Amino acid sequence: MSQYHSVRFVDVRLEGDFWKERLDTVLAKTIPSQHKKLAEYGLLDSLKLPNPPPPLRFPRHPNGFTVQVFWDSDVGKWIEAASYALSHRRDADIEAKIEAIVDDFEKAQLPDGYLNCWYLGREPEKRWSNMRDNHELYNAGHMLEGAIAYFETTGRRRWLDIMERYVEHIRQTFGTGPGQKRGYCGHQEIEIALIKLYHLTKEKKHLDLAAYFINERGNQPPHYFDVEREERIKKGWEMQRYAQSNYEYSQSHKPVREQDKVVGHAVRAMYMYTAMADLAVELNDAGLRKACETLWDDVMVTKMYVTAGLGPSEHNEGFTYDYDLPNQTAYAETCASVALIFWAQRMLHLDLDGKYADILELALFNGALSGLSRDGEHYFYMNPLESNGSANRWDWHTCPCCTMNVSRLVASVGGYFVSTAPDGIAFHLYGGISSNLDVGGTAVAVRETSNYPWSGAISISVDPATPKAFDLKLRVPGWCKRATAKVNGETITLSPSKGYATIHRTWSKGDTITLDLPMPAERMFANPAVIMDVGRVALKRGPLVYCVEEADNPGGRVQRLKLSRQSEIVVGENRDAVLGGLVTLTASGKAIDESDWSGLYRTAPPREAAATLTAVPYYLWANRGKGSMVVWVPEA
Amino acid sequence: MSQYHSVRFVDVRLEGDFWKERLDTVLAKTIPSQHKKLAEYGLLDSLKLPNPPPPLRFPRHPNGFTVQVFWDSDVGKWIEAASYALSHRRDADIEAKIEAIVDDFEKAQLPDGYLNCWYLGREPEKRWSNMRDNHELYNAGHMLEGAIAYFETTGRRRWLDIMERYVEHIRQTFGTGPGQKRGYCGHQEIEIALIKLYHLTKEKKHLDLAAYFINERGNQPPHYFDVEREERIKKGWEMQRYAQSNYEYSQSHKPVREQDKVVGHAVRAMYMYTAMADLAVELNDAGLRKACETLWDDVMVTKMYVTAGLGPSEHNEGFTYDYDLPNQTAYAETCASVALIFWAQRMLHLDLDGKYADILELALFNGALSGLSRDGEHYFYMNPLESNGSANRWDWHTCPCCTMNVSRLVASVGGYFVSTAPDGIAFHLYGGISSNLDVGGTAVAVRETSNYPWSGAISISVDPATPKAFDLKLRVPGWCKRATAKVNGETITLSPSKGYATIHRTWSKGDTITLDLPMPAERMFANPAVIMDVGRVALKRGPLVYCVEEADNPGGRVQRLKLSRQSEIVVGENRDAVLGGLVTLTASGKAIDESDWSGLYRTAPPREAAATLTAVPYYLWANRGKGSMVVWVPEA
Repeated sequence: MSQYHSVRFVDVRLEGDFWKERLDTVLAKTIPSQHKKLAEYGLLDSLKLPNPPPPLRFPRHPNGFTVQVFWDSDVGKWIEAASYALSHRRDADIEAKIEAIVDDFEKAQLPDGYLNCWYLGREPEKRWSNMRDNHELYNAGHMLEGAIAYFETTGRRRWLDIMERYVEHIRQTFGTGPGQKRGYCGHQEIEIALIKLYHLTKEKKHLDLAAYFINERGNQPPHYFDVEREERIKKGWEMQRYAQSNYEYSQSHKPVREQDKVVGHAVRAMYMYTAMADLAVELNDAGLRKACETLWDDVMVTKMYVTAGLGPSEHNEGFTYDYDLPNQTAYAETCASVALIFWAQRMLHLDLDGKYADILELALFNGALSGLSRDGEHYFYMNPLESNGSANRWDWHTCPCCTMNVSRLVASVGGYFVSTAPDGIAFHLYGGISSNLDVGGTAVAVRETSNYPWSGAISISVDPATPKAFDLKLRVPGWCKRATAKVNGETITLSPSKGYATIHRTWSKGDTITLDLPMPAERMFANPAVIMDVGRVALKRGPLVYCVEEADNPGGRVQRLKLSRQSEIVVGENRDAVLGGLVTLTASGKAIDESDWSGLYRTAPPREAAATLTAVPYYLWANRGKGSMVVWVPEA
Repeated sequence: MSQYHSVRFVDVRLEGDFWKERLDTVLAKTIPSQHKKLAEYGLLDSLKLPNPPPPLRFPRHPNGFTVQVFWDSDVGKWIEAASYALSHRRDADIEAKIEAIVDDFEKAQLPDGYLNCWYLGREPEKRWSNMRDNHELYNAGHMLEGAIAYFETTGRRRWLDIMERYVEHIRQTFGTGPGQKRGYCGHQEIEIALIKLYHLTKEKKHLDLAAYFINERGNQPPHYFDVEREERIKKGWEMQRYAQSNYEYSQSHKPVREQDKVVGHAVRAMYMYTAMADLAVELNDAGLRKACETLWDDVMVTKMYVTAGLGPSEHNEGFTYDYDLPNQTAYAETCASVALIFWAQRMLHLDLDGKYADILELALFNGALSGLSRDGEHYFYMNPLESNGSANRWDWHTCPCCTMNVSRLVASVGGYFVSTAPDGIAFHLYGGISSNLDVGGTAVAVRETSNYPWSGAISISVDPATPKAFDLKLRVPGWCKRATAKVNGETITLSPSKGYATIHRTWSKGDTITLDLPMPAERMFANPAVIMDVGRVALKRGPLVYCVEEADNPGGRVQRLKLSRQSEIVVGENRDAVLGGLVTLTASGKAIDESDWSGLYRTAPPREAAATLTAVPYYLWANRGKGSMVVWVPEA
């Protein structure tokens, strides 16, 4: 089968209402306000070497720990997000702000290429001494991704040149050669960035360095984190600050090809699997591919929330044990769902199977998108599936990773819609895009028009420069049971294989395909091994998981509501002052009467009355003030 | 109304099967095995000053923290438990072991009376410098309680003399006088011990010192913990080890009389309320009484598990917010339920109200007793109300507080059955005891015979030395709706007031009362504000809360089971190889079929089949190997 490759985000225009609204919000609100926060919280000052002003909002912790160790990454990620935004609409003010940051980085960089403002401003002699905890390569990765995005959008090389010098320094520092450190970063990320740099430059050395970091990880004895720790102890540098002697936390407990269970910090895991899948594609590495497939199955079968949230535990920001998916205390970090999208996209290019696109879409519309408020200036770091009303979106976070992860995702979402091969085009997502593609040397203009995800009525025009025979592969989502299609008005038989229906024909200018993906509301049930969800039901329509929120169901905590198994779920188009146009689901059930309770326990059952439940898409929750919310509703 | 006082544990003989079995186990297994553990884990070595051998099992933590800071208390609590046990059956071997410990303490004590082996063996110059974290007075309290119990059982004064010297040193060190420290302990406990010492010696200075610690607590500004912290910083002693800048953690956020919400570490809270209630009785202090009543209501109405477990959170080993009562992750430390028994007993003497006895009983038979295994050598520190099968009793703990709390409770349980006043006897608990009481100067032998808690058929004989008119107050538990009684075979009308039915008459030798407390199995429902328990039901019979355990319901996790609202709950007498004789409850319901599940989520509802659920008393859970357990069962 042909190898499909992603289409660069800059080559895809977002035209559908759903994503245009999100994109406009990110452009107009999120990107500028994030820069303000970076300034306000001292992240921008921290780049002003050699003597960065002390941060006002986060003074030095008495134990010596400061929160700045990963700040370079946040700045890098903001540049990345802003660059994606600029590809949609250039903005001189934003570009000036980026250039000012690049000025600082340029001044900060050492002659040997090293560039980490936390170390340079505080403990330059200790650089590369604590790979386990201090995020140096993680920072480098995010800075590099920012530099690549900025170059792709603007063509400006200065920031990319700085980062290429830094990468060269990293290459000399790490490796299996004499005098090199056999280390790797406690927080995976640079591997993804290096593969992007390889895609941009075609220089294989970048791919090799990414492969080195992946291949070296988890080798032992001795474990590199023990080796460097011994060094630190000798030098009196060991501070035990947020020590993680458990190597599963950073997925370095064994070589990556031997890993078959998803463990540890969820974002680190997802970033690593993304890079592994990337390398499996680029190097045709069967061992990495097998590991990716095994790990994928492990997540899907035992560890993912119905919203595609990942990592139930705050303790390790990650995974615990099979089927441990508590709702109210779900950690489900926004970054983890964003990173699951990255991984799913790479898996899709390893094997064009709709099961990967289904999860990409699920994570996009639920666990990831929930991280950004309607106003574009408030966030969720954690994405619980239930709230007693105390959860609240925040306007910044001591660890602001999720803020820029969700903005860079939205601003680059066009890059996930479509892939091309020398003999085909594959549509993964729908929602209104246009792009000029190259199919085996022929220019093909495509335009997909729809009101997706609210409606499954999709129209696609295919305009090759000259008539050309190729595969048009249309994803038929796993949730869609009765898809139909027409080509130029004539019904065709869809026979999806691995989630994609292939239409092979000679395409000519003006060809039009209509695809209808019926979207009935559905009840979802969880495997009874998820003990938290026994006796409960979730509502879903198309790719959207729904939740019951107090804003639509006033009168007390929504946990008092139960949904009747037999009730019809009514699909309704609505408009909310804050949420805008949306599809709501309503159904009948019961409401427990809380008014006759005084103490904690009693022998008389709670009184119940008939009630109507209204549900809205999960990603929209917590935009209308504080209030309770539940995804898994008890059944009446 | 007359003031009722507790009867000393040494004056009550346990004769009923239920408590005799527990007591025999504690005597024969728990007390000796705990001594072995104290030796094995280095706690006994830690008393061997001036150079205690380093502990083998818990080496020094790299941050300088060692677990020994509270070890004196564990040794003291073991002596206390052992002394209670000795009151039932003297044991030369145990007494020799206690004497050997007293030898060590005697050698360790400084001429000025100071006696804390952790400080004396490590940092003697730092004594009394960190009241917030280092448990010095907490240790002193438990040692004092041990000394009092040992004296009461054996009449031997040496250990008590040592502790009285230490108390004198403490009295000189702390107080409002010139040169005294205006401090108090971060972990309340010594207050209870000092009041016990007052009861023993009648010396008011001990009561005054307890009152000082209670009255001083939470006064600010300045907060004493800030004052001493500044001192430590000046001296370079501040280590920030497990810093708790949140004073709610130790209930020192405001003066105790102003506290109206139960907050912080659950055991600290309960020990403090116990002492407050004690002082309210002894000093007739209306402010303390009011605070106790307000705090009692707060626990009862918003913060107690149905098992009388307290403190949902592992994070602070304590309380969070109203109605936060998660089941699987319940912390519900054994010590907290034990301490709730202490508090309830004091409240009962402040106000003879059955609502306090109901909770005393509930905590005793559920949240506290669950902490000790059938074999007497395994424990629960945490007492969750649900397990996926991973929970396991342990044979020791890095913080072994709960082990000796449950053994001292069982060995002294006789002290909770009955109270006396100059003109009355009040029965709080039933289960088979006999005692020679003093009622206004008249000796009255009482014997209560029953198979409680399995049966509510109770017989009480009252034998005054000479005929005497007094109140016999019989507790009619809150769970009992149709109690009946006869005196010498003649039915009497029971008109319980505040949970006690008073029979006033002239009692003569041979008088017999029979009390029948019908014990139907009951369904319990939780206030819907406890969102975790919506749609769920718990089973209870008499004082016993039941649970559904995998051992009795094989075939997979018990979380697959649902209980039908209308099904009859059948009460059956049973015998289990491990659990012994017990009353089980069975009822019909449904079982979810787990066999047709492969992935995590699906649109088809789980298949269900009819099933019979068998429940056993909660306190007996986790004695038959690993297996899942649930208290709150989903309703079918």
